[in-house]
Amino acid sequence: MMRNKAKIIICETFRLPPGFRAAGVAAGLKKSGRKDLALFISDLPAAIAGVFTTNQVQAAPVKLDRRRLAGGVGRAIVVNSGNANACNGPRGLCDADRMTALTAELLGLTKLQVFVCSTGRIGLPLPMDMIEPGIRQAVAALAPRGGRDAATAIMTTDTRIKHATVTFPVNGRTVTLAGCAKGSGMIEPKMGTMLAFLLTDANVDRPSLQTCLAAAADDSFNRVSVDGDRSTNDTVLMLANGAAGHALLRPGHADWPVFDAAVRQLTLNLALKMARDGEGATKLVTVRVCGARNDAEADLAARAVANSLLVKTSWVGDYPNWGRIMDALGYSPAKVVEERVDIGYDGLPAVRGGVRAGTELARLKRIQRQKAFTLAINLNLGPGAAVVYTCDCTEEYVRINYAE
Amino acid sequence: MMRNKAKIIICETFRLPPGFRAAGVAAGLKKSGRKDLALFISDLPAAIAGVFTTNQVQAAPVKLDRRRLAGGVGRAIVVNSGNANACNGPRGLCDADRMTALTAELLGLTKLQVFVCSTGRIGLPLPMDMIEPGIRQAVAALAPRGGRDAATAIMTTDTRIKHATVTFPVNGRTVTLAGCAKGSGMIEPKMGTMLAFLLTDANVDRPSLQTCLAAAADDSFNRVSVDGDRSTNDTVLMLANGAAGHALLRPGHADWPVFDAAVRQLTLNLALKMARDGEGATKLVTVRVCGARNDAEADLAARAVANSLLVKTSWVGDYPNWGRIMDALGYSPAKVVEERVDIGYDGLPAVRGGVRAGTELARLKRIQRQKAFTLAINLNLGPGAAVVYTCDCTEEYVRINYAE
Repeated sequence: MMRNKAKIIICETFRLPPGFRAAGVAAGLKKSGRKDLALFISDLPAAIAGVFTTNQVQAAPVKLDRRRLAGGVGRAIVVNSGNANACNGPRGLCDADRMTALTAELLGLTKLQVFVCSTGRIGLPLPMDMIEPGIRQAVAALAPRGGRDAATAIMTTDTRIKHATVTFPVNGRTVTLAGCAKGSGMIEPKMGTMLAFLLTDANVDRPSLQTCLAAAADDSFNRVSVDGDRSTNDTVLMLANGAAGHALLRPGHADWPVFDAAVRQLTLNLALKMARDGEGATKLVTVRVCGARNDAEADLAARAVANSLLVKTSWVGDYPNWGRIMDALGYSPAKVVEERVDIGYDGLPAVRGGVRAGTELARLKRIQRQKAFTLAINLNLGPGAAVVYTCDCTEEYVRINYAE
Repeated sequence: MMRNKAKIIICETFRLPPGFRAAGVAAGLKKSGRKDLALFISDLPAAIAGVFTTNQVQAAPVKLDRRRLAGGVGRAIVVNSGNANACNGPRGLCDADRMTALTAELLGLTKLQVFVCSTGRIGLPLPMDMIEPGIRQAVAALAPRGGRDAATAIMTTDTRIKHATVTFPVNGRTVTLAGCAKGSGMIEPKMGTMLAFLLTDANVDRPSLQTCLAAAADDSFNRVSVDGDRSTNDTVLMLANGAAGHALLRPGHADWPVFDAAVRQLTLNLALKMARDGEGATKLVTVRVCGARNDAEADLAARAVANSLLVKTSWVGDYPNWGRIMDALGYSPAKVVEERVDIGYDGLPAVRGGVRAGTELARLKRIQRQKAFTLAINLNLGPGAAVVYTCDCTEEYVRINYAE
């Protein structure tokens, strides 16, 4: 594992792999006039994998993509921000289909090879009179260096662009995996929409790609705050176009572990950027729970803490209000025995056996004042462990979310 | 039922029934110097009933009271605000016990007849050097008209005192039932502590009193926002001292329905005051769900909406962001079929069959601008119904909760 990690190089740009082009343009959906329509294309047919929201209410593009994913081959992804195209009934499905059909027509593809994502307000019909010219404009702007524009166009309330590129060797050749993402409201997938697009020139077996992406998403995007509930639009899509020309990657191939590790590294990188850039957030907080009866209960306990509004607001200040953490653990569905709970802040004990550990308050305050810190919670009941990445909840969060 | 209601008179004061005295004093636990210690006493042995938090982490006074409740007889309740006496280990239990023992000693009772509640910060030992003189002071101040002082002393972040008194006839005599309460943080019992004390001179069978109180609490306090999870300290206690001198009330007595209705009316009155006075809240929102597959699912759906931070923040402004309600319904554990959902704002349709109903935006905005409004959600899947009372989440809420 150390050997594999050493081979993977990560950089904080969005460098499209060979055989990919992208574009980001302003179609007019955002009142601000910012870029709001992105297009990604692989010049070769690519294996495609996808992970979608589990919400019972699903946006039209999600419904469409899920169906098309069965085909297993993708060429292009068209994305708009500023409108979620959710809860728009049959018209929503028509509009999503039309976005893919127009993209296909302009690029000489079939629409079944084109995938579509939307993010923004729910319940307003897509303004197709803006979307259509936007798609034409995006097709004209496609370029191998268009990644940054595309990554900008998918942003909504994000304050920072989120992208990264990893390179790693397969069969002695250097392969590239680049990704970009947009964050969600309070960085809880249930609350706002998260989108991520991963592009690689690796040559990957389609079912293996899907398995690999799903597992990596579980350990990254699905670890970002709260409860795993998702918005109507959450989508992660990955294209592998094989331009690197090596033998087909699948479990059993000597370099599969490197590929798998690269995907995990990139998805975690993007997920942490989402957590750090939660709406109004000033702090990245990692909540680690161990000692639960099992992993599922560790997860429930960690999410109860990460999801508690009283806990999240307490992090804005510097007072380490661990009583609220005890309270959240106590009402979580996980088994908790008060007298066994230990809580540490970046290694400093705050609670031991359910009561104050006696660490000097000033030292705990110094930790909570940091831009990032880790809460380590040990339930001392069993082998279960889980981690959730989250952030504080500030007044700015509220302001962002009641504005029309 | 109409006949019974007509007999019950409610007034917005806290008039102690015959045979009760109360006091509220400043013991010094609140830095502000405000009243923080309350005492209620019945001059006669009273039947006692109680409902407590279901949190796995329970404050010392909760542990003590639960045990004592089995005795069935209560004479006094001593309450402090400013410190929760939770997560204090064996010392916490000792201190809680000492509070009851000292109260008993001063009043000539046995400590098993004295109940105790605390509310405030978790994890700090009780300052017994302030509590003990406070109790002496409260005993000296006990008076038949001390209700208002007591109701003031139990407040924490409450901005308004919460109390009411109902009177109703039993066997032709007028009986009084008076109650006071303190609200919880964001009016979600899981997030802050709620306490309520109900005092009556009715003569009530003890087991019937417990059943009646538990059912009334379920339909009132447990309907206030969110998820029914509770803080470490939530407690509702009721004393019935029989001073009215009528025949024992229990189901089967002709006036039992009047008594039961009076208890329900008072608990709902206090619960709505909590919802309206949630920390930083500006609006009382009633979320009614019908058409769920069953009542339990209606409850889950209503709580998902009432508990969604994105929904709660959207209520601060006037834009009726029903898309966020659809999203919350979609990720709730209740079965939801997007195409069947109807949502109304005070009777005006906003969503029909999962899509915009076409009501003019300005009319919906006018409703959301009100101090109180009702969301009526019909899932159109079955007979299940539920209601939750909640409030908006403002910047003020965040400010209150990160202050040390």
